[in-house]
Amino acid sequence: MKGSIPQGTIDRMTLYKRCLENLLNEDNRRQCITSSELGKETRFSPATVRRDLSCLGQLGQRKVGYRIDELYDTINKILGLDKAWEVALVGAGNLGKALAVYQGFKKLGFKVVVIFDNDKSKIGKSWKGIKIRDTRYMPEVIKRKKIKIAIIAVPFVAAQKTADMLIKSGIKAILNLAPSRLTVPDKIKLRSVDLAVKLENLSYLLARDKM
Amino acid sequence: MKGSIPQGTIDRMTLYKRCLENLLNEDNRRQCITSSELGKETRFSPATVRRDLSCLGQLGQRKVGYRIDELYDTINKILGLDKAWEVALVGAGNLGKALAVYQGFKKLGFKVVVIFDNDKSKIGKSWKGIKIRDTRYMPEVIKRKKIKIAIIAVPFVAAQKTADMLIKSGIKAILNLAPSRLTVPDKIKLRSVDLAVKLENLSYLLARDKM
Repeated sequence: MKGSIPQGTIDRMTLYKRCLENLLNEDNRRQCITSSELGKETRFSPATVRRDLSCLGQLGQRKVGYRIDELYDTINKILGLDKAWEVALVGAGNLGKALAVYQGFKKLGFKVVVIFDNDKSKIGKSWKGIKIRDTRYMPEVIKRKKIKIAIIAVPFVAAQKTADMLIKSGIKAILNLAPSRLTVPDKIKLRSVDLAVKLENLSYLLARDKM
Repeated sequence: MKGSIPQGTIDRMTLYKRCLENLLNEDNRRQCITSSELGKETRFSPATVRRDLSCLGQLGQRKVGYRIDELYDTINKILGLDKAWEVALVGAGNLGKALAVYQGFKKLGFKVVVIFDNDKSKIGKSWKGIKIRDTRYMPEVIKRKKIKIAIIAVPFVAAQKTADMLIKSGIKAILNLAPSRLTVPDKIKLRSVDLAVKLENLSYLLARDKM
């Protein structure tokens, strides 16, 4: 069952999981949900939901649907969220600070345990109990703590060098928030988010409409 | 020349612009850059760069390349960044707070001028000089200030309702950071960023490798 789940399905799993979590937190919570109902909540077609959930093996019951708690646990496990992940953050600038103190990641099971930066005025300080360390200790700390995931939030010019150093230190997966394209070996998992590109897409479209 | 620029080109324009900006800020700065050099800096092929920049009209000179300042200004204008955009932020939670105080947006030309929230304990307060207003004043404030762009940073369950309300208030473009898919009319520009999906992609890939 593993190893062959398509990217789109994995993306949707995150959304299903979120929906199920909300249902589990409701006061008078129900036991089961059908694929149609889950589709309605997440705005995917029942067929898409059924196909996605079939990747999880035999879970649902005809007419009754899926047990919400069971489905939630199964998806969580598939997404690798049945354990907490320790995360290294590189870049203690504005964006880094925003992310380090953002509780949303922690709730998902991703806990920033160390921040690296070159700036001497920041090194040694702590944000919400997370210590800012000199970047030169990156290999040592990452190896010792066996950290596998890193978030890059450094300026454009430093991003590739940072990625290279993280990979040398043993990082296996990178979320790149730096406004730069990265080149990494095939075995390294990389996802990038560029908020500036998204915003400038919008301003382009608005400006174009006015022409 | 406008109206027909492909999405991929627009995304790359943001990256070219960033690279040019860095060059403009250098101490002993050069006057010109060739498409090969720009490609090397941004990790795109010279052919891609040349094709993208041809959308801007006749700019470069054979062998000399492009005047950096001229190219920068032209791209900025295409991206609608020759003016500053006032932005409304909805959601004064952790993510909202992180974004409101994030100076990166402002530097790009996007200035958060108002924050909306339902939480009575937050309404009336200010973050870095930006006032948090009751969501019910959204239509009035957005119309009065003629705000066209909004960022949604509310919880999952409130995202669609927020989008509907923003659109009714006159918003034309939305950057959705809420972990929810939105349905909006065709004429509304929408871009979404889901950091949780990206992180859970990484944990899935790491967990799968271990199986």
